[in-house]
Amino acid sequence: MTSQAGLRTKKEYVTTAEGLTIEQLRVAANSNPKSVAGAIAGVIRDKGEVELQAIGAGAVNQTTKAIAIARGFVAPTGVDLICIPGFAMIEIDGEEQTAIRFRVEPRRRK
Amino acid sequence: MTSQAGLRTKKEYVTTAEGLTIEQLRVAANSNPKSVAGAIAGVIRDKGEVELQAIGAGAVNQTTKAIAIARGFVAPTGVDLICIPGFAMIEIDGEEQTAIRFRVEPRRRK
Repeated sequence: MTSQAGLRTKKEYVTTAEGLTIEQLRVAANSNPKSVAGAIAGVIRDKGEVELQAIGAGAVNQTTKAIAIARGFVAPTGVDLICIPGFAMIEIDGEEQTAIRFRVEPRRRK
Repeated sequence: MTSQAGLRTKKEYVTTAEGLTIEQLRVAANSNPKSVAGAIAGVIRDKGEVELQAIGAGAVNQTTKAIAIARGFVAPTGVDLICIPGFAMIEIDGEEQTAIRFRVEPRRRK
């Protein structure tokens, strides 16, 4: 699950319900929230949105903290990040598991 | 921490950064996500927005699941719920702890 030292977040590409391909960051219970926050800010800057996937309470906790930290990273550039949590059934080693996915994107202007 | 059987969510009123008073639901690791989702949907319907507070990975996990479920509860009424996570320093029994707060509100129209 490690693609970068200290980050422990795997980057994938996923197709959304709208048929768009967006970057997905897989967060683990031992992921560093600040590092994940940096990754979120980077993808937001490059692609405009990002999806995070977490399995288990520890991973969900780190993901939530990372999103809160990322809000602070991008706020000075005028971006107000919001998140949309949802469930996803995924198969790992032939076993079905429930993952939590967080879509993170800038808040739309009024 | 129990205000209702099976819910284990304490309802409080908090003042936001904008000086508004909104309802806060305190979620615990043993809170039932579906019950909390029902409470979220109720407050959204009555007040338009709600804040949830969680301390610890288990509580954050249940809160996230509750928000995902609540999205489904309110979606048929045309409401697209978003959430904004943040940190809060709170004092419990004289000890300072970091809580995660989730502001939940309908997505603003484009």
